[in-house]
Amino acid sequence: MTETAEKSTVRGTFSRRLFAGGAAAAALGTIGLAPAASAAAPQGSVRRAGAGGEVKHLKLYMEKLADGQLGYGLEKGKATIPGPLIELIEGDTLHIEVTNTLDVAASLHVHGVDYDTASDGTKTNRSHIEPGGTRTYTWRTHRPGRRKDGTWRPGSAGYWHYHDHVVGTEHGTGGIRKGLYGPVVVRREGDILPDPDRQFTIVFNDMTINNLPKGPDFKATIGDRVEIIMITHGEYYHTFHVHGHRWADNRTGLLEGPEDPSRIVDNKITGPADSFGFQFLAGEGVGAGAWMYHCHVQSHSDMGMAGMLLIAKPDGTIPGHDGHH
Amino acid sequence: MTETAEKSTVRGTFSRRLFAGGAAAAALGTIGLAPAASAAAPQGSVRRAGAGGEVKHLKLYMEKLADGQLGYGLEKGKATIPGPLIELIEGDTLHIEVTNTLDVAASLHVHGVDYDTASDGTKTNRSHIEPGGTRTYTWRTHRPGRRKDGTWRPGSAGYWHYHDHVVGTEHGTGGIRKGLYGPVVVRREGDILPDPDRQFTIVFNDMTINNLPKGPDFKATIGDRVEIIMITHGEYYHTFHVHGHRWADNRTGLLEGPEDPSRIVDNKITGPADSFGFQFLAGEGVGAGAWMYHCHVQSHSDMGMAGMLLIAKPDGTIPGHDGHH
Amino acid sequence: MTETAEKSTVRGTFSRRLFAGGAAAAALGTIGLAPAASAAAPQGSVRRAGAGGEVKHLKLYMEKLADGQLGYGLEKGKATIPGPLIELIEGDTLHIEVTNTLDVAASLHVHGVDYDTASDGTKTNRSHIEPGGTRTYTWRTHRPGRRKDGTWRPGSAGYWHYHDHVVGTEHGTGGIRKGLYGPVVVRREGDILPDPDRQFTIVFNDMTINNLPKGPDFKATIGDRVEIIMITHGEYYHTFHVHGHRWADNRTGLLEGPEDPSRIVDNKITGPADSFGFQFLAGEGVGAGAWMYHCHVQSHSDMGMAGMLLIAKPDGTIPGHDGHH
Repeated sequence: MTETAEKSTVRGTFSRRLFAGGAAAAALGTIGLAPAASAAAPQGSVRRAGAGGEVKHLKLYMEKLADGQLGYGLEKGKATIPGPLIELIEGDTLHIEVTNTLDVAASLHVHGVDYDTASDGTKTNRSHIEPGGTRTYTWRTHRPGRRKDGTWRPGSAGYWHYHDHVVGTEHGTGGIRKGLYGPVVVRREGDILPDPDRQFTIVFNDMTINNLPKGPDFKATIGDRVEIIMITHGEYYHTFHVHGHRWADNRTGLLEGPEDPSRIVDNKITGPADSFGFQFLAGEGVGAGAWMYHCHVQSHSDMGMAGMLLIAKPDGTIPGHDGHH
Repeated sequence: MTETAEKSTVRGTFSRRLFAGGAAAAALGTIGLAPAASAAAPQGSVRRAGAGGEVKHLKLYMEKLADGQLGYGLEKGKATIPGPLIELIEGDTLHIEVTNTLDVAASLHVHGVDYDTASDGTKTNRSHIEPGGTRTYTWRTHRPGRRKDGTWRPGSAGYWHYHDHVVGTEHGTGGIRKGLYGPVVVRREGDILPDPDRQFTIVFNDMTINNLPKGPDFKATIGDRVEIIMITHGEYYHTFHVHGHRWADNRTGLLEGPEDPSRIVDNKITGPADSFGFQFLAGEGVGAGAWMYHCHVQSHSDMGMAGMLLIAKPDGTIPGHDGHH
Repeated sequence: MTETAEKSTVRGTFSRRLFAGGAAAAALGTIGLAPAASAAAPQGSVRRAGAGGEVKHLKLYMEKLADGQLGYGLEKGKATIPGPLIELIEGDTLHIEVTNTLDVAASLHVHGVDYDTASDGTKTNRSHIEPGGTRTYTWRTHRPGRRKDGTWRPGSAGYWHYHDHVVGTEHGTGGIRKGLYGPVVVRREGDILPDPDRQFTIVFNDMTINNLPKGPDFKATIGDRVEIIMITHGEYYHTFHVHGHRWADNRTGLLEGPEDPSRIVDNKITGPADSFGFQFLAGEGVGAGAWMYHCHVQSHSDMGMAGMLLIAKPDGTIPGHDGHH
């Protein structure tokens, strides 16, 4: 894999290396926590996804973390929970060489994209990896288009995710519980891109957020185009809620114009393996501040399924917040 | 606040005073139960929301009810569960002066509309109200439109809701459990309006409907344009079902025309803080009668999460129903 | 009812008789399991629903099965779980003469279509059937169109279902638990039709699939246009997931073209009485093989809520699968 390909495929890889060093950030497994380096698009413009169609290569390592949890990482010793965000554009093909450093069989199963049974990541299809082994999984994506029979074939774009399907049970219950999961975003050409370092993955996994007993905080500066990738795993249903911000309940989480009938929501019921995503302009119409996000099942938020979206003013201060900055 | 502003902001206020006096109706906290005064639009016409943009004022009181539950009310001694329905049109701003008559700190947190952290209604943002105190919360709404960067900004229209975020826990678990919640509807200019006195709020709160052990009955006359505002709170997921009537699973619950791909449903899964709404013509295509609505989780309906939509003929009789009329 | 009417109303009746004889298939209650007789549309064409408007007649029998469970069947002694798939086109009216052979009162309640309270199937509306009795239920459907008041009336098309509303409790909890449920599909004129014998009904009923302790397997040949009708019943929420295939989260499960903003999903949260459906081309972009479908709530799949979609090559072999073929 070339350095260039890795840059475009795994957003946040470099920001994590540059800004988020240290055990806490690694355990957090989230991207772009540093308040610096906001790169908001100038007014009158927005960045959009280019054309797909590339063949890309990536390495992933399944590892045991210091605290006994499990994670996927791009380099040996760098596994995180959630695993790295993998981004593709419709038309891309990705070959992922996965090394299983665990002492049990494990796998990589993905949602949404195209794969043969050899890349299914299940024992049923003998596409798992024995301890110490390596296996290359291939994910293909395709653009929407009309079939020969006249019907419309949807494209692969969406907010998807990957996870183990082998550890503990044939459905990967043990692997998922311990952290073997991560986000995948497939863009359509022309899709609006978020600001660099402003992509946050939030996984409701059983009664944790990102396998942490309390939800992590995420930082942005007012006006940043923030992207949330929301995934659920485990046993329970949840409702995801953000204070002061909303999104469209559709493919992109955005409305392209007035004709889109999608509902605007700030709360959404979600169950295991559901995933969705959206973008918003931090603090748009509501201002800077410490904005809660949480599961709205009352006992879940009371038990810690809550964190903060910390939106700073351009000078870096967060009104009313005397904590984390 | 002028009398006129109150009329247009808080639908049903007058009907409740005029028609639904008495403890039972007040405890019920629903609007327009009286079978009289149907004001169905004449054929060939439908009432639609006008232009927003007004600045409105409202007073709300948080009170303990006779049975120990808690409610919001527009006047002292008039609190209900659910609290009063607050209606706005995109572009409106509403200042709500809230008085906390309880002996514990409490707040007003809202979904969907725009508010600063000072109107967040959380202890985190010091926007709660101490016992005996008063605080003005400001809700802003906006029309959809194109941003300077070329992207589309959704408007505030939607079926939303407000609730306490402080009593019992920092997420308001105790306040919500006891009844501190109510509906908010933000219309878009041109949105179809329901018939007066035909707006019914149904809140699945834990194993109750509107904090009642059994679901209340709602009355309408065949052909009335009925609006249901459905909110969920508490711990459990539910599925909301109505017999003989359906709705579109989109922003308004209505289809504007044949191009809208929204699914038509008569059953919908919903979790805490989810909210949606819809309108239907009472008995359209199915006739007058006693039509059940209920949670379709079997044990929930069996334990009382069910009520009746009583649709009368023009002469006031409800075929097959010998109970409530 | 004429033979012709039965053919067009109850898809799969003949295939079940012809191909799926035997107790196991009858208990399974699913349609078109035979690998033979694939009738994929030739390239460049697709079958579409014609115009509705017919008056149809059907007989249904509620029966106790050999294992003590309950089912609906088109003939005496032929009840299945799920009950037979009933298909209509918008504009059709269906009269169903239901005979209750059970020793308790039971009923037929339907979702989505139009019916008077006399066809509600509830004790409240005295529309149940005493043991040994017979009752005719009438289901009407209608096309979408503009009302006299200028608003748009949605049509009846959708993936719906029927079930008992009387056995055990007034909500039919006992009847549903034991198997008294089945699928209904109402097409819109022009809707794409699946291949004959490639319609599979999957009901998550409590912790079973189709009242079986383990999910049944379904067979298709690569390229077949498969239709899944997914219904949930009972107590629990679930998430429905299929490996290697996706669908649109809208009325038909299909996109008509690029303007449809519906999200493409391969996982969906669902609760009791929710229903949805979709079509896909078996193995499109992913190839033949044994593709899992399962509830993605981890303990549910671990306890058996999983089965296989077995997609054969044109020569009938299923790569990597040495079991059921």
